[in-house]
Amino acid sequence: MARAPVYLDCHATTPLDPRVLEAMLPYFTEHFGNPASSTHAWGWKAQAAVEQARREVASIIGAAPRDIYFTSGATESNNLAIAGAVRAMSGRTRVVVSAIEHKSVLEPASRLGREGFEVVRLPVGRDGIVDLEAAARAIDGQTALVSVMAANNEIGVIQPIAEIGRMARDAGALFHVDAAQAVGKIPLDVEAMCVDLLSMTAHKLYGPKGCGAIYVRRRLPVEPMLVGGGHERGLRAGTLNVPGIVGFGRACAIAAAEMAEECRRVATLRDALLDGLRSNLGTVVVNGTLERRLANNLHVSFPDVDGESLLIAIGDIAVSAGSACGSASGEPSHVLQAISGDEPVPSASVRFGLGRFTTADEIAWTVERFTTVVRHLRQKAHA
Amino acid sequence: MARAPVYLDCHATTPLDPRVLEAMLPYFTEHFGNPASSTHAWGWKAQAAVEQARREVASIIGAAPRDIYFTSGATESNNLAIAGAVRAMSGRTRVVVSAIEHKSVLEPASRLGREGFEVVRLPVGRDGIVDLEAAARAIDGQTALVSVMAANNEIGVIQPIAEIGRMARDAGALFHVDAAQAVGKIPLDVEAMCVDLLSMTAHKLYGPKGCGAIYVRRRLPVEPMLVGGGHERGLRAGTLNVPGIVGFGRACAIAAAEMAEECRRVATLRDALLDGLRSNLGTVVVNGTLERRLANNLHVSFPDVDGESLLIAIGDIAVSAGSACGSASGEPSHVLQAISGDEPVPSASVRFGLGRFTTADEIAWTVERFTTVVRHLRQKAHA
Repeated sequence: MARAPVYLDCHATTPLDPRVLEAMLPYFTEHFGNPASSTHAWGWKAQAAVEQARREVASIIGAAPRDIYFTSGATESNNLAIAGAVRAMSGRTRVVVSAIEHKSVLEPASRLGREGFEVVRLPVGRDGIVDLEAAARAIDGQTALVSVMAANNEIGVIQPIAEIGRMARDAGALFHVDAAQAVGKIPLDVEAMCVDLLSMTAHKLYGPKGCGAIYVRRRLPVEPMLVGGGHERGLRAGTLNVPGIVGFGRACAIAAAEMAEECRRVATLRDALLDGLRSNLGTVVVNGTLERRLANNLHVSFPDVDGESLLIAIGDIAVSAGSACGSASGEPSHVLQAISGDEPVPSASVRFGLGRFTTADEIAWTVERFTTVVRHLRQKAHA
Repeated sequence: MARAPVYLDCHATTPLDPRVLEAMLPYFTEHFGNPASSTHAWGWKAQAAVEQARREVASIIGAAPRDIYFTSGATESNNLAIAGAVRAMSGRTRVVVSAIEHKSVLEPASRLGREGFEVVRLPVGRDGIVDLEAAARAIDGQTALVSVMAANNEIGVIQPIAEIGRMARDAGALFHVDAAQAVGKIPLDVEAMCVDLLSMTAHKLYGPKGCGAIYVRRRLPVEPMLVGGGHERGLRAGTLNVPGIVGFGRACAIAAAEMAEECRRVATLRDALLDGLRSNLGTVVVNGTLERRLANNLHVSFPDVDGESLLIAIGDIAVSAGSACGSASGEPSHVLQAISGDEPVPSASVRFGLGRFTTADEIAWTVERFTTVVRHLRQKAHA
């Protein structure tokens, strides 16, 4: 029986919520103005929509709207935060990041390393959680910036952001949080967590691709990357992506209203997925702790199975072998390397990213398919 | 009689062509994948759509698809071109720009000036055309980069790109063209015009906001701004804005097919607008040459009239007092200053940006409204 394909790759990108598209459409059609056009109603209408979205985006992280600046996505926000803020911290020469940050944090940090900054990569345990003792040693009066993600894009592990934020604040260092995977999935509060800079993106949150934001704590000087035109109070030049911003705002408003219930529902499905795989297949290794993890993430390894064969055989169930951003390279995931320590990195690892539209029926089918395929591959491996 | 408002601000942004939205919609709904997801059909479908769009975008400027890199818009492309390419030209210390470039060229050039580059701003004549003798003097073996826009965003004047490109090529300097206003409005060919880098954006071309591209000549080393993830062959990291890119491609394909006929139609309307204003109002000064100008642009000054009063009184006809990007600042336009030379900058200047959906009826109404309002303001001024 032919079945509809199942999408379980919500860490790579999420489907657009139909309510988000509905909010965006008028800004593609009748309200198409440029918010920079200050002399007529098309411009005013666009500007008002952007400011409404700014309030919605700010609200989900406990920020003031004027501290939100729209960007093209989390990669731009991460680059801007790392490269733009650190130069304001004159005299301080250390940058501290976790070993499992997204590449759009690690690579700008490496650039700073080439410019003479000392870059410290904090190790993580097998549970995927940043080593807080290593953090305490690295964060001191020489530290310009600390960057630790709220939740990991591969293994979904949630970091102790408030604790690290407190360390940074006490040391007078800036604290940046890449919250691309976490916004709308777990509660975030820039005040309570001592966050100075925070990166967000719409397309991990049932919003559109091409639109994100950066939170910048009031009066924090950040050197802009994109200049010319004075948009976003000089921090980020370029015509605002009005429909994208409207969609981002709506996506945040929906997530804020529905997060608690959605997380319960999705966690139940995720747990059913793991239980099903384990009861059918025996040993299934969960990478990283299950306790502090996004409700929609499951990241497992199947011992004795070849990873590439597994993904090819699994066919119409969309999952990822690693993070989407690095999967084209074929390199082993730096996240799995970091949590593996001296042990070999498991070959057949699968990231399941459940979402708002995942159904119990899809999870049952996923269990069935993985059971069949993994059993078959195990038989082949032992033949 | 109440009339529908008239939009004549197509240099600030254009309405989205309904055919573009139609092309985009499936990539918001069923085909929502991330092109970086290389292990399943959602990713493949998105990737194929991006490559189709890359061919459409490349075609309109005579480029090979692999030399097109998607960005968030012309501001990002301009910043990337100016800051990213010049460092590859080691030993050369001069950057040459026209005095009437967009701020997203002028400001990155000024940054280079603060880093030690000599920045030469080429003057323009009263016609708005770059002084080619000054260009010839400034472009030599010390010149790293020359940046001249294809068509100006305020006065619509078309620059002699091929001549300047030839000068740059002969001197071994890089040539960057900001073609944000020109793409799809005039024929462009990166080979014939000796262009090394070219900036484009979708939203000036009846495509969506938040999506643009940069053309980079093969093997030209450009230092990326956004890193981490390896997207766009390492030149521009960040999840691709698939629906935006699809829309941009469709917008280019439509423009390529319809440009010649559309320009004739729009030029006829533009000429009717000028004729109507002149026959009713007498002296109406056209800023910059009419001969080498985008078909959809008219930029005029009304002597003896206060500019702010004019725009307020004109009400439901959306025009701009300057360029949208600088109009919030209230500063006089650097473009008008450049073409005015030692003369005072005219106060009541209006930029009319006609477009694909402008009708003869709207132009007739615009003539009628401006006639009434300018006559009234002239009477007040002389009262």
